[in-house]
Amino acid sequence: MKTLADAFHHTLKDIYYAENALTKALPKMAKAAPTTELKKAFDDHLEDTKEQIKILKKVFATIDAKPEGEKCDAIEGLIKEGESVMEEASGKALGAALIGAAQAVEHYEIARYGTLRQWAKELKNEEGHELLTQILDMEKAANAKLTGIAVTEA
Amino acid sequence: MKTLADAFHHTLKDIYYAENALTKALPKMAKAAPTTELKKAFDDHLEDTKEQIKILKKVFATIDAKPEGEKCDAIEGLIKEGESVMEEASGKALGAALIGAAQAVEHYEIARYGTLRQWAKELKNEEGHELLTQILDMEKAANAKLTGIAVTEA
Repeated sequence: MKTLADAFHHTLKDIYYAENALTKALPKMAKAAPTTELKKAFDDHLEDTKEQIKILKKVFATIDAKPEGEKCDAIEGLIKEGESVMEEASGKALGAALIGAAQAVEHYEIARYGTLRQWAKELKNEEGHELLTQILDMEKAANAKLTGIAVTEA
Repeated sequence: MKTLADAFHHTLKDIYYAENALTKALPKMAKAAPTTELKKAFDDHLEDTKEQIKILKKVFATIDAKPEGEKCDAIEGLIKEGESVMEEASGKALGAALIGAAQAVEHYEIARYGTLRQWAKELKNEEGHELLTQILDMEKAANAKLTGIAVTEA
């Protein structure tokens, strides 16, 4: 990784790996969710994630690269944290901690897409910038929705 | 973990572990930083982190618990990601990717403190709410500063 274009490609592979890992984690979180509302939020987010993977494939195309993932330690750690919540928490703590874990994932994604979008701009990759903005807005909306549930369920 | 109070205590231990881990990671990031401005940002953030650890000790006191950490997989993954940046990146990619890694950490912390602060409110822990708001504002400022550097260095 020497140039900004290298960093862009590398981080794109990271987040592609992360989104694919989430398509496996979200159904487990939906299953563990103690309320219908939270279960629905995770189910909906799974659909969003699948949509985001399609958009990411288009971003790979803007740099003439094939869509591929590269193991991302951060998302592995975040998912592992969500899994331990499912093992260790019950009752009132379960819903609250599941939302907390999901929001940590959202924030990670918001950070990554914010960075990638900025880099796309610097690299004069207008289409990439537009596609990444689209995903970033989806992640921000998903996070706001979780905050809404967290506050309502209190 | 059954009650919201349990979740609060558990997550407080997580973030206490995370902040302590950061006091070890930040000096390495400062050393690897390719510009004086970025080096200074990491040095300053180390000072902030030490201050946050002091504030966290006060939050533990609000629930009559002793300050202690509990291994947090998410921060381990995020730090590991920062370390691989330092190993793999050079030139223009190094500064950009280091800022990206640091912003991912900031966003993780913003998510955690946002959750903890909301829980403190629900638990009617006013002092805890106030102390966590103080840290949350510091993290948001640190993230905004990194965005500023990312945009300037472009």
